[in-house]
Amino acid sequence: MESSSNSKAKPRSEVLKIMEGLAQELYAQIERGEEPVLEIPSRTLSNTVWDPKRRIVVLGPDKLKRRLLDMKESKRFMQTILMLKLIVSSIREGVYPTIRDLYYNGKHTITFRVPNVGAVRENTWDEQAESNAAIEDLEVGLNVLREEMGLSADVKGKVVGPIVVRSKGFEIDATRMGDTALGLPPNPDELDIVKIEASYVLVVEKDAIFQRLNREGYWNRENAILITARGMPDRATRKFVRRLNEDYKLPVYVLTDSDPYGYYIYSVYKSGSIKLSYESERLATPDAKFIGVTTSDIINYKISSDYVIAANERDIKRAEELVRYPWFQSEAWQKEINLFLKMKKKVEIEALSTHGLKFLHDYLLEKIHSGKWIE
Amino acid sequence: MESSSNSKAKPRSEVLKIMEGLAQELYAQIERGEEPVLEIPSRTLSNTVWDPKRRIVVLGPDKLKRRLLDMKESKRFMQTILMLKLIVSSIREGVYPTIRDLYYNGKHTITFRVPNVGAVRENTWDEQAESNAAIEDLEVGLNVLREEMGLSADVKGKVVGPIVVRSKGFEIDATRMGDTALGLPPNPDELDIVKIEASYVLVVEKDAIFQRLNREGYWNRENAILITARGMPDRATRKFVRRLNEDYKLPVYVLTDSDPYGYYIYSVYKSGSIKLSYESERLATPDAKFIGVTTSDIINYKISSDYVIAANERDIKRAEELVRYPWFQSEAWQKEINLFLKMKKKVEIEALSTHGLKFLHDYLLEKIHSGKWIE
Repeated sequence: MESSSNSKAKPRSEVLKIMEGLAQELYAQIERGEEPVLEIPSRTLSNTVWDPKRRIVVLGPDKLKRRLLDMKESKRFMQTILMLKLIVSSIREGVYPTIRDLYYNGKHTITFRVPNVGAVRENTWDEQAESNAAIEDLEVGLNVLREEMGLSADVKGKVVGPIVVRSKGFEIDATRMGDTALGLPPNPDELDIVKIEASYVLVVEKDAIFQRLNREGYWNRENAILITARGMPDRATRKFVRRLNEDYKLPVYVLTDSDPYGYYIYSVYKSGSIKLSYESERLATPDAKFIGVTTSDIINYKISSDYVIAANERDIKRAEELVRYPWFQSEAWQKEINLFLKMKKKVEIEALSTHGLKFLHDYLLEKIHSGKWIE
Repeated sequence: MESSSNSKAKPRSEVLKIMEGLAQELYAQIERGEEPVLEIPSRTLSNTVWDPKRRIVVLGPDKLKRRLLDMKESKRFMQTILMLKLIVSSIREGVYPTIRDLYYNGKHTITFRVPNVGAVRENTWDEQAESNAAIEDLEVGLNVLREEMGLSADVKGKVVGPIVVRSKGFEIDATRMGDTALGLPPNPDELDIVKIEASYVLVVEKDAIFQRLNREGYWNRENAILITARGMPDRATRKFVRRLNEDYKLPVYVLTDSDPYGYYIYSVYKSGSIKLSYESERLATPDAKFIGVTTSDIINYKISSDYVIAANERDIKRAEELVRYPWFQSEAWQKEINLFLKMKKKVEIEALSTHGLKFLHDYLLEKIHSGKWIE
């Protein structure tokens, strides 16, 4: 299959032009004697909407205007422009800062004179939350992801299986890794997908289980792409999983422990989080299916009480939140979460090994090929 | 340089023979009418010794005997034999279980009759700590690492730079990864190192900084192998770093945040931990050098108070522990940790960006090439 361009990243040179364009526009406003204004989609909870058709949370139509000459807005206006300048400089200089680098690089004290008051000192920003918000403003205002701006971040995702990618001219064949794995890049949309002939994608919460399945030949037999992000996924791994589903129509199955934290990890792949809804549009995989371990597996797979773990208060609190999420309103999920809230029992993936060290494979095949997943 | 065999792993087939040999020996003892006994180096704190010449903590000469017919020992004896059986089966069947798989796989209830009491039920083990201890007994008793037994575990390490490895017949050239990285395998000693022409190894605590340095061409310019384990290193990453140092005599430099947790991460690479001293002999890199960020860098690199962070109680408590560790008794480390305890200030790697987004590179080159590291 040829690489489609649906999810392809904007090259950094194009992002540079977009960002310089914003600066030029503001400059032109000032030249014309107008007040410079930034119009940005509002990221408030009231402007966060569940789109049932696309099955993701998206930003609504509300926009806010950051004005230079509005006392309440001028600091945030200036923070956003400072961040614009820092990122434009980093692109021009060929550096790939982290958001924390940008926080430190941009943090300084400005001294200015106020009539009848004298010299006043003000920090550009005090907390990283402020510089991060400026990055988010630019992301939603310019419709450019931080990854496209070239910002660096932790990347947890690893991949093996029938996919060949190209990065900076080098081809990497994920069928030829042996016991090693392909570590994803910070911006997986920049990967050229040279060849992809997989039947499906299996996302595994636990790295150790990923290692097992790789060593035991799971993906070869199943012709599947195997991915882990060791627990809660980072943005790059989510983006990559979405791309495989969206551009190549590969089914995505997620395997986690049976506990509300595992369900939450699944929901982050599937739908993102309410707080970061503006990201979901680009990072979520609404099609992702959950294959387990489910609470009802305790019954269906006869996992005896010796192998289940009592849920704690935090698990129960989290489940009570999950059961209200818009993306957990399906009959299957309502049944599972309510069963969890009734039984108050957790099970680890490894508990399947009570039925033998090879049983995990039987379980996966049954879940995937007999359609015993939920979504 | 050719691959030396210093750190080469025992193949799993050889491990199988060693483990079967132990079983045969016990069987022979029983056949001869003797009490079966396992002799195992003692892993108690009193048998944990700092070896100043090798600069690691090692197990002393004390051995303990696990006897079947000793009331206090018989359960642990049987747990160890059960684990031996489980691991032998997994090798024969070609599966690569995690330690948690083995816990679940081996956990069951035994019913036996006691004269004048009747049927008594006893679990093989209740907690994973018990099954883990059985694995550790086998590791130290047989001088075989769990990795050599083929057990799977989380692997955090990623590598880029001038090294070519072979895994299961596939060659992977870590100079040809682009923005991706080579994810280490669960048993890095099994890698054939086909080619290695690096000047040194740079271990970076933070994944995002690893990504930056990779994208900004650091390792190409420096001909260095770049490694991260995103925080606290796992066993596989430690083993791999040690191998590069021991077999190929590559200098190893470690970069962390300037805080006691960062120093602790360095110390785990360098010397392991007192609790897991029996591992250090195979996993530690006593030669590893710390390049920063140090507390004295706050002064030497003029990092203003706006960019440093007040230490909390946990930091101070940890530093008070570190200052007593045998491997932190050098003059340089004593000076650094005591300076930290006096100033009570932490600095992140990214704080170097206050001097410009490219300053990190200048800092690294100065630290490494002007010998400004400590150990």
